[in-house]
Amino acid sequence: MMLSLKEAADRLLAAKSLILTAHVHPDGDAVGSSLALAAALKQLGKSVRIIIDDDLPSGLKVLPGFDRIERPTEGQSIQVDLLVVLDTEPDRTGNAMQGITAPVLNIDHHVTNEGADNLDFYVDGDRAATAEIMYQLLEFLPVTLTRDIAMPLYTGLATDTGFFRFSNTTPFTMRAAAKMLECGVKPNEISESLEARPYEEVIGYAKVIQTIERFADGHAAGIFLDKEARENLPGTDGLVGSVRVIEGVDVAIVMKWSEDNAYRVSLRSKGVDVSRIAASFGGGGHVRAAGCTLRMSFADAKSSLQTAITAALQSEEQA
Amino acid sequence: MMLSLKEAADRLLAAKSLILTAHVHPDGDAVGSSLALAAALKQLGKSVRIIIDDDLPSGLKVLPGFDRIERPTEGQSIQVDLLVVLDTEPDRTGNAMQGITAPVLNIDHHVTNEGADNLDFYVDGDRAATAEIMYQLLEFLPVTLTRDIAMPLYTGLATDTGFFRFSNTTPFTMRAAAKMLECGVKPNEISESLEARPYEEVIGYAKVIQTIERFADGHAAGIFLDKEARENLPGTDGLVGSVRVIEGVDVAIVMKWSEDNAYRVSLRSKGVDVSRIAASFGGGGHVRAAGCTLRMSFADAKSSLQTAITAALQSEEQA
Repeated sequence: MMLSLKEAADRLLAAKSLILTAHVHPDGDAVGSSLALAAALKQLGKSVRIIIDDDLPSGLKVLPGFDRIERPTEGQSIQVDLLVVLDTEPDRTGNAMQGITAPVLNIDHHVTNEGADNLDFYVDGDRAATAEIMYQLLEFLPVTLTRDIAMPLYTGLATDTGFFRFSNTTPFTMRAAAKMLECGVKPNEISESLEARPYEEVIGYAKVIQTIERFADGHAAGIFLDKEARENLPGTDGLVGSVRVIEGVDVAIVMKWSEDNAYRVSLRSKGVDVSRIAASFGGGGHVRAAGCTLRMSFADAKSSLQTAITAALQSEEQA
Repeated sequence: MMLSLKEAADRLLAAKSLILTAHVHPDGDAVGSSLALAAALKQLGKSVRIIIDDDLPSGLKVLPGFDRIERPTEGQSIQVDLLVVLDTEPDRTGNAMQGITAPVLNIDHHVTNEGADNLDFYVDGDRAATAEIMYQLLEFLPVTLTRDIAMPLYTGLATDTGFFRFSNTTPFTMRAAAKMLECGVKPNEISESLEARPYEEVIGYAKVIQTIERFADGHAAGIFLDKEARENLPGTDGLVGSVRVIEGVDVAIVMKWSEDNAYRVSLRSKGVDVSRIAASFGGGGHVRAAGCTLRMSFADAKSSLQTAITAALQSEEQA
């Protein structure tokens, strides 16, 4: 059932013990929203755990509470009053929800999240980040905005808006961030931590950037990393940003080996709806930032993607 | 004479004809502050020209009025009521002020600008950008904040704060930017324009990034471009950012050939005061972002810089 924000807050207030979870491949918003909500609920004296079924980006380790985020354990059996799924639909949480007996509350800002009959949800696709919804939610919770809440909230806002550069950034986002700075958040501390890269990664990125391929008459460009190329590169976070800045490029992608015959794809756009391209491969996301996984050979994945993107750009042109 | 902001506004209001200028190597704040003030003064019916003695970054071409910015002409002779020098001391304006007969009003946010007895000045080193001072100034001018004013103001704020990531970003900065978004500024339009790089430049950057040298026990790193390397690279804007993100690096630099036996240096820091290092070579700037030009051979410039930076890092450590 679609709830109002007030009703969602009431569900949270009514619960004494809660588990929070978020999507696999967690980003600053998934982790930030979880940590912020956990800090708020702890301030209210509630028992709260965060369980996420994936490695966490190391750049987020400056966030208070980061070390207390758990991974699901094999055969876990947990009884709590409420299970809160943040920044995604429940089916993108890996094994985090396994063995947890609790009603589900789903809070998300992804337009592609249509909710479901069997769970309570609050989805607002107009919000830049789930962290922005968390910020609005605070209005309905009797908590003080402390640095422990503000730092992860700020991080969620900052990462989902590309540090306030993307089109989803609104005056509300900027003013929310202003509040966070007033609570002692240091933007340079967050940005330096998020952006810090080992020397080897910087050099590795520089190497693969030289392999950027342009297609669709230069309106799209991508980096395609097979198993070997992927294994030689420590990370790929933010790599797609280096493709995105190329003049004339509307759709930027990074396709990388994730396991045998499975390639994880990040799509970024300046106009074309890449969430539709991602959805056609079983993924999802936003109009200008989406992701999907292609389960096929490297060559097939590459050509399928290029074909789909070229077609999307052409139909855009005709529209 | 140091003026109050109100007095600075009164000087502007009293003038009927004005020339605005800013520093050579103009950035988003120099150009943005000039365009914003020009748009405000034009709204008040004044005759305003902007004269800057340098090429302008092409990423700023989306700003309204960009095409009307002039360069000084040989032997120019101009009589106006007021000459406004923005975002720098008057001696860093190249030949822009030559042949202009007018009292000078200097408005700047660089702490290193100490003003002078023979001119009226308003300097506030606590402001993130001169554009932020322009925004405060609007309170004393009977103008409406239009998109023509808001776009360049936003650009000045965004560029001098590294898109709201640097330590100079305050709640005031964020709320000022929120106002600009309300006036129709699109953050993605500005950021995409500022960040757009020709394919050749992206590839060129990737090549020179592989030449990054670490020194001072890994606390500093730099790219050193001699004449040939510089000439093979279309631009160097933002290149220092790629050095800055390396883990453990406090001081990041790009040193590039600018003319025979002259090397232009950009310094960025996460802690050490690089404005002092820049000042020791006759340059200036901020604690965390500064610049200077070294007039010597490539080898001497490189070793002088490395020595000065290593010494600054060591004295920091001891402090």
